[in-house]
Amino acid sequence: MQCLVVYDIVDDNRRNKIADVCMDYGLDRIQYSAFAGDLAPTHQEELMLKIAAILGKRPGKVQLVPVCEKDWNARRVIEQAESASKEGTDAG
Amino acid sequence: MQCLVVYDIVDDNRRNKIADVCMDYGLDRIQYSAFAGDLAPTHQEELMLKIAAILGKRPGKVQLVPVCEKDWNARRVIEQAESASKEGTDAG
Repeated sequence: MQCLVVYDIVDDNRRNKIADVCMDYGLDRIQYSAFAGDLAPTHQEELMLKIAAILGKRPGKVQLVPVCEKDWNARRVIEQAESASKEGTDAG
Repeated sequence: MQCLVVYDIVDDNRRNKIADVCMDYGLDRIQYSAFAGDLAPTHQEELMLKIAAILGKRPGKVQLVPVCEKDWNARRVIEQAESASKEGTDAG
């Protein structure tokens, strides 16, 4: 099942460790502090336990949102690469 | 319907404008570049059109993921305020 993990962590070291554990679970980085990917519910729970252990009692917010296939397929994406801005110069 | 908007925009000015439009639509900021909230599908589409207009042809990635009530209620959240780290000093 698809899920989104979005976090807001001040401590650089912990934030990087949380990114590492998300990547360990095979999630894709969709933003500096956000990941998405296919994870079974038990693995989603496991990942959040690992994240909680990394964070300890430090301040921060982490959200894991499961997304069913129907909703995942209905997502809207705007994605423009660096070169897109150059192509667009003619149009202003 | 709940939705999550997660973006990765280099241009500070455009990024701030996108945050403003997300707030105009009543979404809650859950992270520096991520918002969540209740929006009807037509408003989700409208919001993405506005975001696309703000971004123009500049590089960036924006995702809007609709989340059904069942999934939204199943989300997992870790939230620890600044003071939590102080309370926790005794425990190491």
